[in-house]
Amino acid sequence: MNKLTHFDDSGQAHMVNVGDKANTHRIALASGLITMLPQTFDMVMAGNHKKGDVLGIARIAAIQASKKTSELIPLCHPLVLTHVSVEFQPNQETSSISCHVRAETTGPTGVEMEALTAVQVALLTIYDMCKAVDRGMVMDDIRLLEKSGGKSGDWKAPK
Amino acid sequence: MNKLTHFDDSGQAHMVNVGDKANTHRIALASGLITMLPQTFDMVMAGNHKKGDVLGIARIAAIQASKKTSELIPLCHPLVLTHVSVEFQPNQETSSISCHVRAETTGPTGVEMEALTAVQVALLTIYDMCKAVDRGMVMDDIRLLEKSGGKSGDWKAPK
Amino acid sequence: MNKLTHFDDSGQAHMVNVGDKANTHRIALASGLITMLPQTFDMVMAGNHKKGDVLGIARIAAIQASKKTSELIPLCHPLVLTHVSVEFQPNQETSSISCHVRAETTGPTGVEMEALTAVQVALLTIYDMCKAVDRGMVMDDIRLLEKSGGKSGDWKAPK
Amino acid sequence: MNKLTHFDDSGQAHMVNVGDKANTHRIALASGLITMLPQTFDMVMAGNHKKGDVLGIARIAAIQASKKTSELIPLCHPLVLTHVSVEFQPNQETSSISCHVRAETTGPTGVEMEALTAVQVALLTIYDMCKAVDRGMVMDDIRLLEKSGGKSGDWKAPK
Amino acid sequence: MNKLTHFDDSGQAHMVNVGDKANTHRIALASGLITMLPQTFDMVMAGNHKKGDVLGIARIAAIQASKKTSELIPLCHPLVLTHVSVEFQPNQETSSISCHVRAETTGPTGVEMEALTAVQVALLTIYDMCKAVDRGMVMDDIRLLEKSGGKSGDWKAPK
Amino acid sequence: MNKLTHFDDSGQAHMVNVGDKANTHRIALASGLITMLPQTFDMVMAGNHKKGDVLGIARIAAIQASKKTSELIPLCHPLVLTHVSVEFQPNQETSSISCHVRAETTGPTGVEMEALTAVQVALLTIYDMCKAVDRGMVMDDIRLLEKSGGKSGDWKAPK
Repeated sequence: MNKLTHFDDSGQAHMVNVGDKANTHRIALASGLITMLPQTFDMVMAGNHKKGDVLGIARIAAIQASKKTSELIPLCHPLVLTHVSVEFQPNQETSSISCHVRAETTGPTGVEMEALTAVQVALLTIYDMCKAVDRGMVMDDIRLLEKSGGKSGDWKAPK
Repeated sequence: MNKLTHFDDSGQAHMVNVGDKANTHRIALASGLITMLPQTFDMVMAGNHKKGDVLGIARIAAIQASKKTSELIPLCHPLVLTHVSVEFQPNQETSSISCHVRAETTGPTGVEMEALTAVQVALLTIYDMCKAVDRGMVMDDIRLLEKSGGKSGDWKAPK
Repeated sequence: MNKLTHFDDSGQAHMVNVGDKANTHRIALASGLITMLPQTFDMVMAGNHKKGDVLGIARIAAIQASKKTSELIPLCHPLVLTHVSVEFQPNQETSSISCHVRAETTGPTGVEMEALTAVQVALLTIYDMCKAVDRGMVMDDIRLLEKSGGKSGDWKAPK
Repeated sequence: MNKLTHFDDSGQAHMVNVGDKANTHRIALASGLITMLPQTFDMVMAGNHKKGDVLGIARIAAIQASKKTSELIPLCHPLVLTHVSVEFQPNQETSSISCHVRAETTGPTGVEMEALTAVQVALLTIYDMCKAVDRGMVMDDIRLLEKSGGKSGDWKAPK
Repeated sequence: MNKLTHFDDSGQAHMVNVGDKANTHRIALASGLITMLPQTFDMVMAGNHKKGDVLGIARIAAIQASKKTSELIPLCHPLVLTHVSVEFQPNQETSSISCHVRAETTGPTGVEMEALTAVQVALLTIYDMCKAVDRGMVMDDIRLLEKSGGKSGDWKAPK
Repeated sequence: MNKLTHFDDSGQAHMVNVGDKANTHRIALASGLITMLPQTFDMVMAGNHKKGDVLGIARIAAIQASKKTSELIPLCHPLVLTHVSVEFQPNQETSSISCHVRAETTGPTGVEMEALTAVQVALLTIYDMCKAVDRGMVMDDIRLLEKSGGKSGDWKAPK
């Protein structure tokens, strides 16, 4: 049995009807990481503290991308974001930078896709700014960590 | 020494000057994958062959996203794509679907970001359509596989 | 007397003030059709059932376009869609495909333009995908069928 | 046999490869019309000559929409328009207004979709501005009239 | 002490959390002006009354731009505008045209940026349409005049 | 005589035909400034050197806006930018920050509007980030400084 809600009974895609859903406060947390060469990692870290602020630019790109989610994902409902924040955690040992995004809204649909889209575009922007010195960077482990609000209730990724 | 080309000598971000670069034929291949529960994988596969075509919709989303790359990535140059194709390869054993994108242009800048953006949005669209049944899906191994054209020449990801 | 509400008393265009309107549940149904050569019609129908899914792609384009309505129509208010569905009805006898769209929102303004925009872009997308074999396709009878909600109440197109 | 070029040999949609096509001067002409109640027609005509310029606004909307064509039509190539003009011809006898658009580019792909998109959005904008007084307006006969340039050569709609 | 609310305690940019703010009716008024050569001014004025309607086009551009504010300003919240109007006041003596915009919404955030963005794009559009005859036009005195609604209450620019 | 090139002989707006214009290297420089309270100026300057980087964010917003120019200005031709840079010059004495933008392309149309749009959005972004502490900031003296390339040749603003 196909329970994918983005398709109607005849298997055709539609934008799911959320007209009867209550407006609730919704939060989603998502994360992902990009791994690079040690010398690329050092360059990004150097910039972060003085000039050449790669992570500052990736943060802005992520926030802007979260606002474009319903343009990018065909069956996503448009929604009015009330909060987006983006944190980066560098890991010297693995030459990687992880990105955590928190998105919030008050409305009838969740903000999981907004949080995930922001993570993806943050990582892509880091890739773009470093690709001239390191084309082999890899983006991994992009996932939802947690969501709350709405009829389906709270959810946390298993550890 | 900071060699990140998206910053000028004083460390400020700019859109790199490509006015002197030759127009060459440029190709980029990128890939990534999404891993899900076996029952989610089965639902996607069932739909792919008759109704509820998750991958068909993800393919369209990916092609459209490739055209929005310079809107999403702050320092990307706008460019005129001449070709985009998107392939999915399901792997029953790992309950995962990999996505390969090929992007092409003739111009002064490469299409790596367009190929990577298309991969990201393809995976995000699969996530969106299946999230009601499986919130724990993970996107991994998003990377450039190959690029050709331009002054920096050809590049292939090491195996 | 000019009663076109998109103009103020001095005849200048404005985005009509809807700040005092109540948020009500609003529905609009619109339709239109595209007529083609019999052999083009057969190609589209063939694709619809196995490969080369013209109508599946047109459906996605229509849903995405409905979200862009206020960008396309200058004096349209932005609104938050709660539902969009798109149906195609092929007519072998007339070699034509009709498209029906249903759009819904809860808010101070109607969704007629969202439904009509989705119909237009669905038909355009069919045209685009078939134009290499049939440039003479014609789009006709694009109209509102029905709307409900709001102060002006319900309306149905006369038969 | 399926010859729809927007699908590859396995029936999957792609953005057709135009990298080998020559850059030629391309022109497309498209048209369509909207029919309304006589009193609506009179209102539009009154505005056109002094205040409440419905057609002036529809013209601007059409030109702007032509620039958004590749965002709206999933498999359209982005292209750089070199000219767009929009003419309206009112017909008092039939209470209808026809719209003619001419679009031009120099490039590897045609501008038929840009011309048709502009016609559609011109008619939709007229509908939007008049819908408060006339919801039953109908848009018809939207078609390509003529195109020139490119490998497939010139084409004219049969009378 | 840094009280700029668009940065968190560690100095990183974020989209400020407005989830707890009440939905109130909000109004913003903004203005600005463009000064040109006397002969350019005369051309614009001539067009405004019969053909070549520079100000009519600038008004439409301004209204459309107000809807794009959250796309243009990185940390702006998306919001649903309920009213936008744009007035131009020509001043023959100084060969300048001033633009006043009023924007309204009901929501948790203000519409100051929407009003200011509309003013800027109105002036830019006038510049664009006249630049072939007068490249030296200057835009000045772009400012918020007044705002009401929200927790911070009413504000008026000092005379 | 009306010589405004954005109107045809009958006074109707069109996107000017540039199909016959040569592709030349084109450069435009534009500038503008925003004046604020001394304490606001100090906050921005503090952030610029350590945390809360207002100008870094305004620079990114300006570059992204330059890519959206033809979406914002109705009769602007789309073009492919080859370079954009944005500089800020703080003036402690006047509590103002000036913004200089340089935009370049190789094509048939100039980049004046792209440079001016970037300046406007840079200033608007500074306004947005500081408005919680200073609503009375004013943007002035937004103008073209210089342009080169194209049939109309070089131009410099008189001092």
